[in-house]
Amino acid sequence: MSFGLENLPYGVIAPAGGAPRCAVRYGDHAIDLDALARAGRLPHLPAGVFAGPVLNPFLTLGRGAWRETRARLAEILAAGHAELIPLHEAEARLPVAVGDYVDFYASLEHATNLGRMFRPGAEPLLPNWRRLPVGYHGRAGTVVVSGTPIARPWGQRPSFGPSAALDVELELGVVTGGPGNALGEPIPVAAAAEHIFGFVLVNDWSARDLQRFEYEPLGPFLGKSFATSISAWITPLEALEPHRVAAPPQDPEPLPYLRADGDWALDIDLEIELNGTVVSRTNARGLYWTFPQQLAHATVNGATARAGDLYASGTISGAERGSEGSLIELTRAGEEPLELPGGRRTYLEDGDTVVLRGAARDVSLGEVSGTVRAAGSTPGGQR
Amino acid sequence: MSFGLENLPYGVIAPAGGAPRCAVRYGDHAIDLDALARAGRLPHLPAGVFAGPVLNPFLTLGRGAWRETRARLAEILAAGHAELIPLHEAEARLPVAVGDYVDFYASLEHATNLGRMFRPGAEPLLPNWRRLPVGYHGRAGTVVVSGTPIARPWGQRPSFGPSAALDVELELGVVTGGPGNALGEPIPVAAAAEHIFGFVLVNDWSARDLQRFEYEPLGPFLGKSFATSISAWITPLEALEPHRVAAPPQDPEPLPYLRADGDWALDIDLEIELNGTVVSRTNARGLYWTFPQQLAHATVNGATARAGDLYASGTISGAERGSEGSLIELTRAGEEPLELPGGRRTYLEDGDTVVLRGAARDVSLGEVSGTVRAAGSTPGGQR
Repeated sequence: MSFGLENLPYGVIAPAGGAPRCAVRYGDHAIDLDALARAGRLPHLPAGVFAGPVLNPFLTLGRGAWRETRARLAEILAAGHAELIPLHEAEARLPVAVGDYVDFYASLEHATNLGRMFRPGAEPLLPNWRRLPVGYHGRAGTVVVSGTPIARPWGQRPSFGPSAALDVELELGVVTGGPGNALGEPIPVAAAAEHIFGFVLVNDWSARDLQRFEYEPLGPFLGKSFATSISAWITPLEALEPHRVAAPPQDPEPLPYLRADGDWALDIDLEIELNGTVVSRTNARGLYWTFPQQLAHATVNGATARAGDLYASGTISGAERGSEGSLIELTRAGEEPLELPGGRRTYLEDGDTVVLRGAARDVSLGEVSGTVRAAGSTPGGQR
Repeated sequence: MSFGLENLPYGVIAPAGGAPRCAVRYGDHAIDLDALARAGRLPHLPAGVFAGPVLNPFLTLGRGAWRETRARLAEILAAGHAELIPLHEAEARLPVAVGDYVDFYASLEHATNLGRMFRPGAEPLLPNWRRLPVGYHGRAGTVVVSGTPIARPWGQRPSFGPSAALDVELELGVVTGGPGNALGEPIPVAAAAEHIFGFVLVNDWSARDLQRFEYEPLGPFLGKSFATSISAWITPLEALEPHRVAAPPQDPEPLPYLRADGDWALDIDLEIELNGTVVSRTNARGLYWTFPQQLAHATVNGATARAGDLYASGTISGAERGSEGSLIELTRAGEEPLELPGGRRTYLEDGDTVVLRGAARDVSLGEVSGTVRAAGSTPGGQR
């Protein structure tokens, strides 16, 4: 069975006409966690921790509480002692109130591909890239759950109009948890895992034409901030422990604050489906910078990480053709369009549906989907 | 009297040993807004709107409720019918839970100065600068209230160590309010003011050495994310209405979505005080891009603006020597150090205190202060 006891991801569902409730997924069903807690089945947890519309209070509790909850849920489910809500009778909601959203640039292949396209003729990797996990802040308020329609964004391309280069980015994201760190107190790389609650799939929708005109010198802004989709279910780190593998070698050796013991790459198969056709297959294990390195770097200056923050990997691209994590790479900036049953594509057209999927063998991360809708009427102020 | 009836800014205070409470400032006193509401003195507001530890619920109500509240508070205070809490008996807290924090780059003089220093020999303004308000997302979770000590950040300069180029940035920030816009529905520039609750002073602390090494191609990250300080009291837009003046001419004429009617520059005198000496005096009226333009641009792609988001102007620099809004500009990247009574300064040293102040004649924006403390012990992971 998919989404069996080895998985047990957390999310938030709204049964038809009902209020959103925290839930755990088991097969094609969800279990209402607040109902379990109110029935006294999760006595180790503080009262009301699942009573709200998001998982954040649970995320603050830390690894001990998460482990114990996972063990109890497995017992309850194995014994068949829980009311199962069919997923098709409920709507998925955004599982966390996202505090801050950081997006890294951790794939060597992606950074190289983009560097070639955005800065032709120059060295594709800038001097900082192999020294630190390059990243930036995205917009937390426009992180949306899988299934949310994506309106084509207006902007300066540099002429003003709806983006004509709407793209996807296939990413993995960490949702942080635990008590967090105090301002001014970095999270050591060895302790980073204690701050990782779990993982989601991320589609970092990108309007390449807007991005290209605006991004110097302060980075991407409107080219990214219109929407970022995440999968509905957060797969706990515990479920992915058996799928930790060695990361690629790093050259030069990272500074001590970025040296993590143990294997921290994740053997997760990933794919992009566009209008029903899989157009890319890759694996997260090839990411150059690991998630503990990303988190240690993001806090080395003393910045805090709060429960419910989202740290995404950046686009995950492999080295081979057909393993790139974005359309700009898959089509070589439009020079080699994708031939699909429904028609040729470089960038996304209105009505297109993109589904990203991920699975570490029997531990599925589910999917994150989105359909492009036409740009709205001319933004106000046009005369 | 400073902070008289023409001002009435909102904030959050914690009286000694007490819980944080929403408050309005009047002279050197604060009035507990929840106490007023519970006493039936603000009957036009929903019950409990001031009961929490932040102003966000009030911010969602919109201009009508803000106007009515302001009128009632003025009546209550003029009649002497409120319990006054001396400010020295209470601690200022962060007045809002910041949703997203965007930082613009709206001063022509600042962008020109920085362009010359970061990209010597090249045209200082990039082609996008006069076409749109360049901006990026900062870290909402490290926005702190005036008075919070600022730990010197560690990072790659590119050698690893505490920043040796810690700087300030003198800015104004908008705190948004109202019901917000739906995802995919831009805020027209003509309606932007309806989404502006009020203004704060912002010190966007910047580690120039970290920033310089990391910022290409995705923009500033750790060089900024360690802390951003805001003033404790949010001055409502209503209080600044009499101080709206014409903004500088824009060339080329902005696109229609950025064309605002009316005068939208703010005649606010600003200063930077370093260890007791005023080192810069400028005025916000010289900002090239206005706040309504910034907000219209930030949402033209359909991104939402929520109540409690912070949109800062970017460093406000004037054209004359002594009117620059950062030390890197005031000292010409260290070539012309500041001679202060306590010693010469290029960048900040441990123990230095910076106070930013702002006032539109009799409407004071108060101050935002911060003292630099030494970097903590070597971040974990060092061996």
